[in-house]
Amino acid sequence: MTEFARSGGRAADQLRPVRITRGYTIHAEGSVLIEFGDTRVLCTASVEDKVPPHKRGSGEGWVTAEYGMLPRATHTRSDREAARGKQSGRTQEIQRLIGRSMRGVFDLKALGERTIQIDCDVLQADGGTRTAAITGAFVAAMDAVAKLMAQGKLAKSPIVGAVAAVSVGIVEGTPLLDLEYIEDVACDTDMNVVMTGLGHYVEVQGTAEGAAFTRKEMDELLRLAEKGIAELVELQRMALLA
Amino acid sequence: MTEFARSGGRAADQLRPVRITRGYTIHAEGSVLIEFGDTRVLCTASVEDKVPPHKRGSGEGWVTAEYGMLPRATHTRSDREAARGKQSGRTQEIQRLIGRSMRGVFDLKALGERTIQIDCDVLQADGGTRTAAITGAFVAAMDAVAKLMAQGKLAKSPIVGAVAAVSVGIVEGTPLLDLEYIEDVACDTDMNVVMTGLGHYVEVQGTAEGAAFTRKEMDELLRLAEKGIAELVELQRMALLA
Amino acid sequence: MTEFARSGGRAADQLRPVRITRGYTIHAEGSVLIEFGDTRVLCTASVEDKVPPHKRGSGEGWVTAEYGMLPRATHTRSDREAARGKQSGRTQEIQRLIGRSMRGVFDLKALGERTIQIDCDVLQADGGTRTAAITGAFVAAMDAVAKLMAQGKLAKSPIVGAVAAVSVGIVEGTPLLDLEYIEDVACDTDMNVVMTGLGHYVEVQGTAEGAAFTRKEMDELLRLAEKGIAELVELQRMALLA
Amino acid sequence: MTEFARSGGRAADQLRPVRITRGYTIHAEGSVLIEFGDTRVLCTASVEDKVPPHKRGSGEGWVTAEYGMLPRATHTRSDREAARGKQSGRTQEIQRLIGRSMRGVFDLKALGERTIQIDCDVLQADGGTRTAAITGAFVAAMDAVAKLMAQGKLAKSPIVGAVAAVSVGIVEGTPLLDLEYIEDVACDTDMNVVMTGLGHYVEVQGTAEGAAFTRKEMDELLRLAEKGIAELVELQRMALLA
Amino acid sequence: MTEFARSGGRAADQLRPVRITRGYTIHAEGSVLIEFGDTRVLCTASVEDKVPPHKRGSGEGWVTAEYGMLPRATHTRSDREAARGKQSGRTQEIQRLIGRSMRGVFDLKALGERTIQIDCDVLQADGGTRTAAITGAFVAAMDAVAKLMAQGKLAKSPIVGAVAAVSVGIVEGTPLLDLEYIEDVACDTDMNVVMTGLGHYVEVQGTAEGAAFTRKEMDELLRLAEKGIAELVELQRMALLA
Amino acid sequence: MTEFARSGGRAADQLRPVRITRGYTIHAEGSVLIEFGDTRVLCTASVEDKVPPHKRGSGEGWVTAEYGMLPRATHTRSDREAARGKQSGRTQEIQRLIGRSMRGVFDLKALGERTIQIDCDVLQADGGTRTAAITGAFVAAMDAVAKLMAQGKLAKSPIVGAVAAVSVGIVEGTPLLDLEYIEDVACDTDMNVVMTGLGHYVEVQGTAEGAAFTRKEMDELLRLAEKGIAELVELQRMALLA
Repeated sequence: MTEFARSGGRAADQLRPVRITRGYTIHAEGSVLIEFGDTRVLCTASVEDKVPPHKRGSGEGWVTAEYGMLPRATHTRSDREAARGKQSGRTQEIQRLIGRSMRGVFDLKALGERTIQIDCDVLQADGGTRTAAITGAFVAAMDAVAKLMAQGKLAKSPIVGAVAAVSVGIVEGTPLLDLEYIEDVACDTDMNVVMTGLGHYVEVQGTAEGAAFTRKEMDELLRLAEKGIAELVELQRMALLA
Repeated sequence: MTEFARSGGRAADQLRPVRITRGYTIHAEGSVLIEFGDTRVLCTASVEDKVPPHKRGSGEGWVTAEYGMLPRATHTRSDREAARGKQSGRTQEIQRLIGRSMRGVFDLKALGERTIQIDCDVLQADGGTRTAAITGAFVAAMDAVAKLMAQGKLAKSPIVGAVAAVSVGIVEGTPLLDLEYIEDVACDTDMNVVMTGLGHYVEVQGTAEGAAFTRKEMDELLRLAEKGIAELVELQRMALLA
Repeated sequence: MTEFARSGGRAADQLRPVRITRGYTIHAEGSVLIEFGDTRVLCTASVEDKVPPHKRGSGEGWVTAEYGMLPRATHTRSDREAARGKQSGRTQEIQRLIGRSMRGVFDLKALGERTIQIDCDVLQADGGTRTAAITGAFVAAMDAVAKLMAQGKLAKSPIVGAVAAVSVGIVEGTPLLDLEYIEDVACDTDMNVVMTGLGHYVEVQGTAEGAAFTRKEMDELLRLAEKGIAELVELQRMALLA
Repeated sequence: MTEFARSGGRAADQLRPVRITRGYTIHAEGSVLIEFGDTRVLCTASVEDKVPPHKRGSGEGWVTAEYGMLPRATHTRSDREAARGKQSGRTQEIQRLIGRSMRGVFDLKALGERTIQIDCDVLQADGGTRTAAITGAFVAAMDAVAKLMAQGKLAKSPIVGAVAAVSVGIVEGTPLLDLEYIEDVACDTDMNVVMTGLGHYVEVQGTAEGAAFTRKEMDELLRLAEKGIAELVELQRMALLA
Repeated sequence: MTEFARSGGRAADQLRPVRITRGYTIHAEGSVLIEFGDTRVLCTASVEDKVPPHKRGSGEGWVTAEYGMLPRATHTRSDREAARGKQSGRTQEIQRLIGRSMRGVFDLKALGERTIQIDCDVLQADGGTRTAAITGAFVAAMDAVAKLMAQGKLAKSPIVGAVAAVSVGIVEGTPLLDLEYIEDVACDTDMNVVMTGLGHYVEVQGTAEGAAFTRKEMDELLRLAEKGIAELVELQRMALLA
Repeated sequence: MTEFARSGGRAADQLRPVRITRGYTIHAEGSVLIEFGDTRVLCTASVEDKVPPHKRGSGEGWVTAEYGMLPRATHTRSDREAARGKQSGRTQEIQRLIGRSMRGVFDLKALGERTIQIDCDVLQADGGTRTAAITGAFVAAMDAVAKLMAQGKLAKSPIVGAVAAVSVGIVEGTPLLDLEYIEDVACDTDMNVVMTGLGHYVEVQGTAEGAAFTRKEMDELLRLAEKGIAELVELQRMALLA
């Protein structure tokens, strides 16, 4: 089987160029523009001194996320969800995933009774918006927590580890790391993997778009994802040192 | 580490008693009550002679699913989604999963321009409602397709294989098959696996509820799931022969 | 005029076979499956230790009801109200009727500041779903109240009498008791009657679907309803003794 | 038992002063302000040259109704339904009743494929808004039909009889005709009756607000309603002659 | 350029006949029917002893407005917003304008922690409904405040001046005061002006429907509006003296 | 009266630094990031080969706009409209204003039966988002039209002139051009002015936030706006030449 040829001569196990811009907007406690190639997501972390009802009086905080896509982030314009009056199932699925991924590295007790509200808004889409969102949201959350610590509101960080995410998939028989849009459309199997800096899994979501996939294929995809996430965690670390 | 003790002395790799009742209601082309222990889901398959806009004129059919939970299917009553005016993110996530799982074993071309509408309604919940729903929906879909063939509307079945689903998770260090509600609440890692009769993956959705999980843990969970699904596929087969 | 011939040789003043199954599901304080022939409705009664705003601090309780129909309870699939985002006028009309009927036999003062929430979900429809719902809901409410008394939360029952309901109508000139679907569609006049165990009226809702009906016709229908409800109240009593 | 004393010395079987003003607004094909004492409802009938989907191609027309209450039609302001984003169950129940009542005297075949859309908007409420609405809507519909006939669009009227409505109820043991607000609040039993000009029933909706009512009480109420409706039909006739 | 000929020989700078009927309905603290020619708007002012969240504990009151149009107030019937489930952008724009205009002459401190809720409902439309609404709402608000003062709840009026509104526009080159519907449809430029009794501006909203307008045209329109509003304020004053 | 001191020593009649970045995102036919100081709005123009129902078969095109604000574009996070399920009145008011402003310089006949859909999304807010949106949307629309002409779909531009917008207001007695957020909050009078490149008015919306304003004040504000818009039109022209 000949290998699928990627745009720009990218290798099968190669991430797209990743750029992480901190302080992209001025009001949010954490504000990060993350780019995975042509995919651009603005991730903000807002601190609110209240928690949702199910956490009130618990001494614990909460971390949650919302996701949106600007109508013309995509090749053809999609409806504005605010105008249609509801978020799509896809949007809800993604924002729930981002929220769980963030909570996976948060000690909610240590956060205290406050909420970190993550907002991920896709300015431009070319595949992988949810994985870019998670990877960027972690950096925004770090900045928001740093602000709380600088203000003396927290003595130690409630963040217990790094978290990043990447998509992997099989296109025309070739396992690929970090799918761009045309690869995503063409792939038989598509998997989003969220891992910690220690290489443990927070979420694995694999879907056979065409034929069902074998255990062997899953193992190859997981290996690719592990490699990609290790690189993303290093890129997050460098961005946070800048 | 001592093993977690399951209710009723169930072994860690043992399914709950599964009952599949075909023809549970009279109007639907396929109507199955499936029980995984105390979890009871009514799965109906309805045939409609039209397709959604994105399939019109394509010569292909469509398979889609909706999911609901009766308000008092659960320990404490939950709000009726119809009264609240919207389906929760959880509901949408589940019904999208059921739809993709069904489409994973359907040849939409062979179905022709008609829709198989799956409805999964939880009458009683005790964990694993989405996996019971997928497992039961497959049987309902088989019955609906058999009816189309008996009516001469289809010459050969558009269903290309069996599909079933099961949950697995790690509770107090013990990997368990087919979690019931109290196990689901207590588990650190929770994974829903959808596989075909040939043992290939259609969907894998693993979530670390507490600590992130290791590759070794994932491998153990996948092995458990594979065992459970092989048994479920056999139970489906026997039910369809009855 | 020759009499309309009913399916199964049923007499004009004869109820369909009625089955009342208590404890149909395990979580609700009262859970009853009621069947009027092929019509099957699951009625649950849930006890909640709070009341709606208009009763807070009044010392009185509240009894209310919601009604739903599974999408494929009917001959052709109907839209899922949760997915459409609103309950139809018909649904609201029915659930308001069930709530008023239940309150008709409740002493809200004696109930104390708690709510009995009735849920009636139609699993299979063949006419008369609202009257079956009321008749079954009464049994579920009795069970829920018995539980409150067994727990010592209530010293005496707040239920002051039985309540049951039946439909009557005129089809091709023949007054009929307990209409099934094909009779309901064909009838000129359709009346739903809710009465207490003492034979007093809680609700009477008569509608001329075709020609307006005369006082004489109404009198015949009321007589039929009275007969049917007396039988239903007896069936409730026997079910509660079981 | 002493009789309940009504405001203004009104007799138990006496209607409030009824005023019917045709041509109250200028745009609608029929526009009637109807007053039952202090209750004032603006009823318009609009002709539209199309029918809803279920009547398309049937050769038959449709008659339907919507109902609304201005926010400050009542003693204390109620929420504006348009602002809240949905019609209450009560509103839907009433507008469905008005629609059925109107259709009860329409020959939809003779109407042809057009819709008579009735709008009943309560400008001021003092009990009996739905019965005033039905009584006024009939006059508005007559005017709309007269316009269609004058334009040569209809050769003969599709209206086959008069229809009017009144409320009756038992307050402190006294059966009363045409309840005003304070009587409505105080009544044990409340019945809305819709009858044709020939004295046949189109709708009967009786509700025990407090204790269930007896057959004897119902008979007294029906007799009162019959008297009231005969008077209303005469008032409609006189208004149409003016 | 010849001047545009107005219906009824109205001069370009002439208002339509204005009628202000106080006490039009009985329940509201202020209730005014205002007519600008064939445009008829019912304006009520309701006093509520609470304020919205953003004013709680501030010692200040609030004045707000809602606007609606009966479905058949217009030449062809428009959808009922309550049935459609949302207010149009136009409706929201208008009710926000009315609210701001009223607050422009209210001293919210002097009002105390209560709300004046204005409701403007168009019974019949012939252009200028929003300006009629503002002009009538002021009179209704005056009546509501007078009632509060008569009850001793307010020692001095929180209303610091009169406010009225009128539309102006340029039709076929002629600047016109108080546009009726056919003029509104034909106009190139349309301006709604809200002014106080002292001749100061509360709101100016000018829109070029066709070609952009010049400063000179705006000056002419503002002069016309000033004349019209002076007359309207005088008509309000006379109505309040009646 | 001493003049109000602006941040950064800005003169009362001075615009904030304006930056116009064309081609900010890759998919839209026109994509412009416009910055008025710290206010940043992404304006895209999308071409769609269809028109809304009211234009079908008319031979004319349509230009419309939607507006949104990212939840954390502001000092404190505001609710996501898509999650709340409706657009606020403010949002609708703004997007209607943008749409009318764009149509003010479009010859819809010359556009042909296609739609230019403008989306203005605020990434960061510091006052003047609607005026920045209009000014940027014009540039995006120019780029979209240029693309249509380059593709040979249009022979001549349907854009008949430039359009830009600016806010003006009176803060502590000083008339100011181009208000930033803290000035907007503090101002007594606030006016948004939309003008063409020829200096004619498309929209004028003035609001007295505190005391009503005089004709003399309005004249001063209009003069300031005229100056500002002349500069903005020049900045648009330079950006389009780049």
